[in-house]
Amino acid sequence: MRDVRVGVIGATGYTGSELVRLLLQHSSTSIELVTSQSHVGRRFSDVHPQFVGLFDEELQSLEDVEHTDLDVVFLALPHGASMDFVASFGTERFRIVDLSGDFRLPSAELYRKWYRKTHRAPGRIDEAVFGLPELFRNDLRKARLVANPGCYPTSAILALAPLLKQDLIDIEGIVVDSKSGVTGAGVKPSSTTHFPDVFGNFSAYGLLKHRHTPEIESALELYCAAPVQLLFTPHLLPVDRGILTTAYAHLRRPKINGSDLRDAYDSVYRKEHFVRVLDRPPSVKAVRGSNFCDLHVVHDPRTGRVIAISAIDNLVKGAAGQAIQNMNIMFGLLEHSGLGQAPLSP
Amino acid sequence: MRDVRVGVIGATGYTGSELVRLLLQHSSTSIELVTSQSHVGRRFSDVHPQFVGLFDEELQSLEDVEHTDLDVVFLALPHGASMDFVASFGTERFRIVDLSGDFRLPSAELYRKWYRKTHRAPGRIDEAVFGLPELFRNDLRKARLVANPGCYPTSAILALAPLLKQDLIDIEGIVVDSKSGVTGAGVKPSSTTHFPDVFGNFSAYGLLKHRHTPEIESALELYCAAPVQLLFTPHLLPVDRGILTTAYAHLRRPKINGSDLRDAYDSVYRKEHFVRVLDRPPSVKAVRGSNFCDLHVVHDPRTGRVIAISAIDNLVKGAAGQAIQNMNIMFGLLEHSGLGQAPLSP
Amino acid sequence: MRDVRVGVIGATGYTGSELVRLLLQHSSTSIELVTSQSHVGRRFSDVHPQFVGLFDEELQSLEDVEHTDLDVVFLALPHGASMDFVASFGTERFRIVDLSGDFRLPSAELYRKWYRKTHRAPGRIDEAVFGLPELFRNDLRKARLVANPGCYPTSAILALAPLLKQDLIDIEGIVVDSKSGVTGAGVKPSSTTHFPDVFGNFSAYGLLKHRHTPEIESALELYCAAPVQLLFTPHLLPVDRGILTTAYAHLRRPKINGSDLRDAYDSVYRKEHFVRVLDRPPSVKAVRGSNFCDLHVVHDPRTGRVIAISAIDNLVKGAAGQAIQNMNIMFGLLEHSGLGQAPLSP
Amino acid sequence: MRDVRVGVIGATGYTGSELVRLLLQHSSTSIELVTSQSHVGRRFSDVHPQFVGLFDEELQSLEDVEHTDLDVVFLALPHGASMDFVASFGTERFRIVDLSGDFRLPSAELYRKWYRKTHRAPGRIDEAVFGLPELFRNDLRKARLVANPGCYPTSAILALAPLLKQDLIDIEGIVVDSKSGVTGAGVKPSSTTHFPDVFGNFSAYGLLKHRHTPEIESALELYCAAPVQLLFTPHLLPVDRGILTTAYAHLRRPKINGSDLRDAYDSVYRKEHFVRVLDRPPSVKAVRGSNFCDLHVVHDPRTGRVIAISAIDNLVKGAAGQAIQNMNIMFGLLEHSGLGQAPLSP
Repeated sequence: MRDVRVGVIGATGYTGSELVRLLLQHSSTSIELVTSQSHVGRRFSDVHPQFVGLFDEELQSLEDVEHTDLDVVFLALPHGASMDFVASFGTERFRIVDLSGDFRLPSAELYRKWYRKTHRAPGRIDEAVFGLPELFRNDLRKARLVANPGCYPTSAILALAPLLKQDLIDIEGIVVDSKSGVTGAGVKPSSTTHFPDVFGNFSAYGLLKHRHTPEIESALELYCAAPVQLLFTPHLLPVDRGILTTAYAHLRRPKINGSDLRDAYDSVYRKEHFVRVLDRPPSVKAVRGSNFCDLHVVHDPRTGRVIAISAIDNLVKGAAGQAIQNMNIMFGLLEHSGLGQAPLSP
Repeated sequence: MRDVRVGVIGATGYTGSELVRLLLQHSSTSIELVTSQSHVGRRFSDVHPQFVGLFDEELQSLEDVEHTDLDVVFLALPHGASMDFVASFGTERFRIVDLSGDFRLPSAELYRKWYRKTHRAPGRIDEAVFGLPELFRNDLRKARLVANPGCYPTSAILALAPLLKQDLIDIEGIVVDSKSGVTGAGVKPSSTTHFPDVFGNFSAYGLLKHRHTPEIESALELYCAAPVQLLFTPHLLPVDRGILTTAYAHLRRPKINGSDLRDAYDSVYRKEHFVRVLDRPPSVKAVRGSNFCDLHVVHDPRTGRVIAISAIDNLVKGAAGQAIQNMNIMFGLLEHSGLGQAPLSP
Repeated sequence: MRDVRVGVIGATGYTGSELVRLLLQHSSTSIELVTSQSHVGRRFSDVHPQFVGLFDEELQSLEDVEHTDLDVVFLALPHGASMDFVASFGTERFRIVDLSGDFRLPSAELYRKWYRKTHRAPGRIDEAVFGLPELFRNDLRKARLVANPGCYPTSAILALAPLLKQDLIDIEGIVVDSKSGVTGAGVKPSSTTHFPDVFGNFSAYGLLKHRHTPEIESALELYCAAPVQLLFTPHLLPVDRGILTTAYAHLRRPKINGSDLRDAYDSVYRKEHFVRVLDRPPSVKAVRGSNFCDLHVVHDPRTGRVIAISAIDNLVKGAAGQAIQNMNIMFGLLEHSGLGQAPLSP
Repeated sequence: MRDVRVGVIGATGYTGSELVRLLLQHSSTSIELVTSQSHVGRRFSDVHPQFVGLFDEELQSLEDVEHTDLDVVFLALPHGASMDFVASFGTERFRIVDLSGDFRLPSAELYRKWYRKTHRAPGRIDEAVFGLPELFRNDLRKARLVANPGCYPTSAILALAPLLKQDLIDIEGIVVDSKSGVTGAGVKPSSTTHFPDVFGNFSAYGLLKHRHTPEIESALELYCAAPVQLLFTPHLLPVDRGILTTAYAHLRRPKINGSDLRDAYDSVYRKEHFVRVLDRPPSVKAVRGSNFCDLHVVHDPRTGRVIAISAIDNLVKGAAGQAIQNMNIMFGLLEHSGLGQAPLSP
């Protein structure tokens, strides 16, 4: 069987380099094209020096998609650019895994409300499958267009899905308190990512208005077939990689016990390779560089609350790794191909 | 007027060195005694090299308290050692500001339940005043024994007090999600504070069982004269100093607006030197090294929740700085004497 | 005596905010003017939120220098802008402490060679006094224009001056290996200061070509009245503040011993408040936020080399603190006024 | 061909977990035994939680070496324990790669001088091959006992070897200024690795006396067949992984040029998979998690000096990765088996 022929569109950002890092370990794919807007003609390893000697291919332009025989493209583009790509190329020539937010929300209206721009490929929204394999694997097998989930949503949805699915918690009053490393803000320097201001610092941002709020809600609603409302608060963590999400909810039944909770998580994740349900709180370093999502859940009889905590690497399970997991499912490959590395800790 | 004569009992930990750092800037105090259990006879600046040339006094033993003329002692001792000190020396010879948790809870029973040890000076518990000046200033003026609040409680109580006092939120269902720098764990090396394991890492700990839970609840109950129940979750932040607390609560009235919230905070903190109510989310670095507590509050009409965020330096407003603020009140000094430095940022 | 009336020209960078932080602690100065190019009309504390409630003055434009009664101005401007300011305003109306590199080199030719631009106030170069008080205090008392030393040069010159002055080392073959925190690169975001790229990283930069090379050489030549040639290599340290310099040189006499070295340093620094000669290697955190320069020197009989190590806070002794020390000397004030804070550690 | 059967002796430290991380990616080895002194009976993943689901084997005791069929053992033991192991088990039953310093120095006398203890297996010292494949590959093929180089020596030797081999620099007066991440100090907590004291800090340590000094000298002498004398100064870098070494030397010929230098490095490293000679300064993050050693060399006509800079991951090329590279050579496997991962950056 020939290798899956892959294009990475937008290869100079962090998700782009992470896709290449993982694909180089994949036994059934070949990278046929890496593109860039601003660095056309330079070598990939000039922009990402860690790849010297490993991947020195030249960066091409978006137009080269036309002349390349590809089975799948990963869109590592900014929000907005992805929908233009999909509008231009369609989903017939190759399958698409889009790492932007353009096809994650269920309607163009919701997109306009939270992203504050008009969707330019609204006819494709229904076609897109939300690429969280643990919840939507069956839909992904035949998908032509996958909306790869956001980093925060991945961590929040995996933490909460079993509780909602098993009807253990109220569907409102959920609090999602998330903390993300700085790579989540992208490769472009700005005052919010300037080293002296982030180092030794910590703060919340995007209060009440972060775009991942409706993404978390709508994915959980889809999975649980019930309305969900939650309050999501992101914080900037002074580390390069990693998201830790601490989610709080009110238990519907006061008499629940620890094994009920454990059963709920086991019923959803028992066979999952990339979700590890732990008997202690997870940490972001124990998943660094890997596609794992580590989970821990406890309930507090005193206050009638449950705490579900998840840890992921925002660039892997929160972006490039999950995208490759989706590709593996789409092409009938072993689901963890290219994703076998142990976490890098310490 | 003669200077207030001060003893620092337990001067080799972080709160001990921080007390000295601030007292050196104080115009109305003199440090008469610094003690240590394990380093008697060494100079203070041998243990804390940042003080070479600034404070080279010899560390003495606890027994030297007997021979020293002191107006006030700061107990920078581990939990348990403070109550023994108070049991031995009483509160008549000098006034005491205790930085441990020994006198913070309102009863010996609650102490036994959360600290898992028997209180050895139970008769002094009622005498102790909870040393949060912004809420209990009047009681502090004549106090002989002050229970200096914990670092997490300081950040949580200051964030929530106005909301509860003004009856704006439910007294149950409150979530306190806190993140602390590593100095909060003390000066003693352990596997949880080993650099390679903390660097680039982040995790929750002490789930459901942290001793600061009843401290936050009982101080808020005392201030608001109503029962309070909350869920407190601490996290370990890979920085040296700083606590950020994100508190969530359910609004009692759906029609509340931003100016109601602002009024609630202004009514409590308008005249406070060390509480800054900001119109943007606070950050721990903007208070580093200072006695400030920065606050920000928003409400979410969509979910009917309020978010109150606070930032402090855990070693200053969360420990040594607040202790000096309490001393200033106890001795009728200017409340910000010794506490005038601007935060060190970046 | 009236307070010294101070203007801070260019108050939105890190040296600008550091000047204000220290001046707020000074008992004999008043800040009459803070200027900005891009933030005129905003409050200082809008740009530097750590100052809310402490210094909320409005940022004015450079032109306001005309209308303000000032005794001294600190130029916290980029290289090039300072010489324009001096060319415009002269040194008669007020005294000037320039924190840029414009007046640090002894000739316009050397400036052109290393800064790659033509000097636009060459007539003022001879008037400028190099502002390293420990070596040039007498010249500073009457100075109208002070060239405040660079951060690396301060650390290197203080480490090496006694060895050269006492003729203990060869005047060539000196190696200066320096490591600086990221605030040394200024407030403006760039790819070299982007948090994800600096965090967990370390590298050398500016090999052979760094502008501080001739500054170190010429200051040492001036002090020792002999030619000096050295190799200076800067590295970017993933911390916010601090420079550690490790300097290596060849001993002229093989039979030298530790007390010879100690004597050399004592003879220069014995009475200096801000230079601490330690009997162990210094660390950058033990001087954080303070104006200290910590030094340690050892010699290796095996290889005939000496190692001199220095630690400073690049924003204080390496910039703003030293500038205030210079001002104190210029105006006959207590040399450590405004500079009395203990280092912030941990 | 059957897999190479591997034992990891001392699997609870950082080099132990790193060996397992890399061996899990190796296609021709099987891990037959992991031992621990203090954690016998616990699962490997209890001690190293990043391995949950990946490697949950039980930790056994050292004695289990007797009952296990092994081709090679990696000794990830403290200095001193390794020589006892070799004295007990010999080198006939299995081949040994020792990651401690016990067999790196060429004589028991030198060992006693620098390690301050008597060597307990002096008869094995001559048998040991210094495991730096790029310089001593031929000797490694048949080695029964390999002394895996120290982390600092790997970085220093690879930087300097071509210069000495080609007779380009003086054999004395070399300065090696190295900076290492904290994992180099091992897994055991101590005051020098306590997070609050390392974070934001930087300092030199082990001046003149570090044990890696004679290791660097003797390996270079062996390779170049000439005496070498240098001054080595280590520094503690506030990162988890990575060593950067900046080496300085005096050029023997003033008229050397850049291409001479380049040729010298190419002649030694042209065919080496793991040494990358770059045209810009290397950084530790561009090799994180990988077995690469990145090099850059420049010369300064002004001072007649050369600067050679190297970057490695101290736990990989500086320990576990190099150990596996050595094993691959010893067993005739592909030299980069198990070592194919791209660096983890950012």
